[in-house]
Amino acid sequence: MEDPFVIVGGDAAGMSAASKAKREDPELDVIVFEKGEWVSYAACGMPYYVKGEVDELDDLVAVEPETFREKRDIDLRTGHEVVDIDPKAKTVTVSGGSEPFEQPYGSLLIGTGARAIEPPFEGLDLDGVFTLRSMDEADSIQRYVTDADPGSAAIVGGGYVGIEMAEALVERGLDVSIYEMLPRTLQPFGEETARTVEEHLREQGVDLYLDTAVEGFAGDGSVEGIEYEGGSAATDLVIVGVGVAPNVELAEEAGIELGPTGAIATDEYGRTNYEDVYAAGDCAEAEHVVTGEPDHVPLALTANRAGRAIGTTVAGDPTPTGGIAGTAIVKAFDLGAARTGVLDEERAREAGFDPVSVSIDAPTRPHYYPGSSELTVTLVGDTETGRVLGASIVGREGAKRIDTVATALSSALTVTELQNLDLAYAPPFSPVWDPVLTAAKVLAGKLEN
Amino acid sequence: MEDPFVIVGGDAAGMSAASKAKREDPELDVIVFEKGEWVSYAACGMPYYVKGEVDELDDLVAVEPETFREKRDIDLRTGHEVVDIDPKAKTVTVSGGSEPFEQPYGSLLIGTGARAIEPPFEGLDLDGVFTLRSMDEADSIQRYVTDADPGSAAIVGGGYVGIEMAEALVERGLDVSIYEMLPRTLQPFGEETARTVEEHLREQGVDLYLDTAVEGFAGDGSVEGIEYEGGSAATDLVIVGVGVAPNVELAEEAGIELGPTGAIATDEYGRTNYEDVYAAGDCAEAEHVVTGEPDHVPLALTANRAGRAIGTTVAGDPTPTGGIAGTAIVKAFDLGAARTGVLDEERAREAGFDPVSVSIDAPTRPHYYPGSSELTVTLVGDTETGRVLGASIVGREGAKRIDTVATALSSALTVTELQNLDLAYAPPFSPVWDPVLTAAKVLAGKLEN
Repeated sequence: MEDPFVIVGGDAAGMSAASKAKREDPELDVIVFEKGEWVSYAACGMPYYVKGEVDELDDLVAVEPETFREKRDIDLRTGHEVVDIDPKAKTVTVSGGSEPFEQPYGSLLIGTGARAIEPPFEGLDLDGVFTLRSMDEADSIQRYVTDADPGSAAIVGGGYVGIEMAEALVERGLDVSIYEMLPRTLQPFGEETARTVEEHLREQGVDLYLDTAVEGFAGDGSVEGIEYEGGSAATDLVIVGVGVAPNVELAEEAGIELGPTGAIATDEYGRTNYEDVYAAGDCAEAEHVVTGEPDHVPLALTANRAGRAIGTTVAGDPTPTGGIAGTAIVKAFDLGAARTGVLDEERAREAGFDPVSVSIDAPTRPHYYPGSSELTVTLVGDTETGRVLGASIVGREGAKRIDTVATALSSALTVTELQNLDLAYAPPFSPVWDPVLTAAKVLAGKLEN
Repeated sequence: MEDPFVIVGGDAAGMSAASKAKREDPELDVIVFEKGEWVSYAACGMPYYVKGEVDELDDLVAVEPETFREKRDIDLRTGHEVVDIDPKAKTVTVSGGSEPFEQPYGSLLIGTGARAIEPPFEGLDLDGVFTLRSMDEADSIQRYVTDADPGSAAIVGGGYVGIEMAEALVERGLDVSIYEMLPRTLQPFGEETARTVEEHLREQGVDLYLDTAVEGFAGDGSVEGIEYEGGSAATDLVIVGVGVAPNVELAEEAGIELGPTGAIATDEYGRTNYEDVYAAGDCAEAEHVVTGEPDHVPLALTANRAGRAIGTTVAGDPTPTGGIAGTAIVKAFDLGAARTGVLDEERAREAGFDPVSVSIDAPTRPHYYPGSSELTVTLVGDTETGRVLGASIVGREGAKRIDTVATALSSALTVTELQNLDLAYAPPFSPVWDPVLTAAKVLAGKLEN
């Protein structure tokens, strides 16, 4: 009998691969080892659980373990940690249950995910100081807010998690401050979008400490204060959301190569340097459609898609995992902010481009139609080739228009081609020139000169 | 001195061309002859004027005539009709003012638009029977609804205008019926979308008479009834919205060639068979990005974009007008319905494709996030090449996602490439797999088999 398809990690990449492989080849044995108890859960929904918009933590589970086991015939073993990989012998060592045991594999998928970065802050272990990465952490924060009734919260980091948690905790009635080491929030979204979001956060009563390095937290048992370069403030709750690091130790120890970003290097099929060993999701790199270089963008769709493709490949039909554009969207109270591609000038130059950027404000509907709001579109193009490099969009409605640019990036469209797209228009939905087209018109004019 | 750039027709194509040509070459003389009094108006906004959401008809004017004349230095002459073109002598004959006169041109743009089709119905000239194409007609309908206080309306034609007017007149308190000759409304949107819209129209109290040929209208002075094959009904108001025909007579008489659709044939720069004569907007053809064939899709963006490109070309910088994908979106009460590309099976076959289609229902947000609604996505691909051919989307929110597919069509993406796009995800905006991606996944699976 063929050795099974073994998967390390039971979240988006792992369970997508398991389900797809079984669907394509029902004869294939598929074993998933998950060290925790939660599988196939929507980490992106956790802030909305804390906010109170999602009733039960269990609502975030996309597919129940029993469904994987009984309906999809997947050998899903929670509470089992893979502690060693031997890619030459094609076995993994598994801890959990009684004794560690060896499991042979035909193909192996590493889907170990990422973990929240914990800088060496003083007082990280005080009660009331949290990161938000696992379902258990979401549960702990939610309980702490309910039971300890904190009046104020300090959020360290002005990225997605920081901003989503700010919204959640304001909704729960806390006074919220965000501390960001860099001069702006939402670093990957570019200056214009960040400034718009920051203004809105302030309007919502969030205090922003930009350009402010946090040093640690004070308290006796429970957190009582935050200390930062040049000052301190009282706080009853701390969320540290300064980014994630890929869980690569298991792979690295097995001689599986990491890429330039520090995540696991993969080819277009998600394969590592060992032919039968794949990696996908938050622990792995993927190819960026604009730069053609490996990149590490730990987001849900990338994990799901790569997992699904690898499941198909392992079942016998080689399928590329697809490139990434770094497309992302985040809700900040009443605003949506989105980005795709390469916005950062320095990064664009490193990739060999000569970037030019414009930012425009445009209404989401014609002036005469009720309910219009303003959208700010930042668009970046390459001087030499005219190619679209990236975009950012922010506004009360319509930030999902970023998908148009993400699609253009995947096709390497020029700014002129973007400008000439036949997008949908009717007064209730858009001005005649969609804001994305308006940005392209302005950037095309600038690129000509 | 160079002969001027003469433009026939002062709406979207004409005024876009005039403005852009002047901006690019301020020395160029630009003359626009418009036979009516309205210029640069948003015809698409007229149903919302009748509905009462737009206060003044004048609100639909994008740029006032004085602005064109004084700020943009364009010689705009309303009340002037071009009655003859002599492309060999490079002159036009203009009627209006005192005597008809001849005007030489260096370049000429024909932007004569389209008119509402008026089938040979009995009683078309009764009071209370209208088409909706011009601003004056919008004004007349609005006055009639206010002054004659009609209790019921019969709308002939279940296309954009028919459906938008149904919404407007229901809002004004009328009992509305739609009569459609074909077995379904919104013909270019495909079966699934049409059925979803029809169900919703009925929920809103609109009576639908599908597969029903109208014969005429009865009444003594004012309309009192509608007669159709096999029956009749009382009605106080009639709107005839059965489509538009391009105004090509002036061009045709001058020996300017028409294309296979009956609209004016143009090359990629919007040129007719006479090198210095251009045509753009609702009277002209444009190249379809999917079929590569000339097509006639009289919509606002096409007109604006072609006008702008021709203005640039005439000012000395040859600029293609860009292809069209037939992208359109319409509001039907609480629904948005959108389409792009080639949905019709027969038409796809004529263009040399072997079409396969899927329709899927998908939520606009994850199951756990509040406020989700259902989106129905129909996606058509070509069996042989795997290329995306067209799509239709309908739902309470998110129909603007059609732009993703419209962009994919312009780049001739395959269904697999569409499936692999890195679109934006966060729970408030989308499920992990955007509904467009879900449709692509399902269609890709079908194309493989």
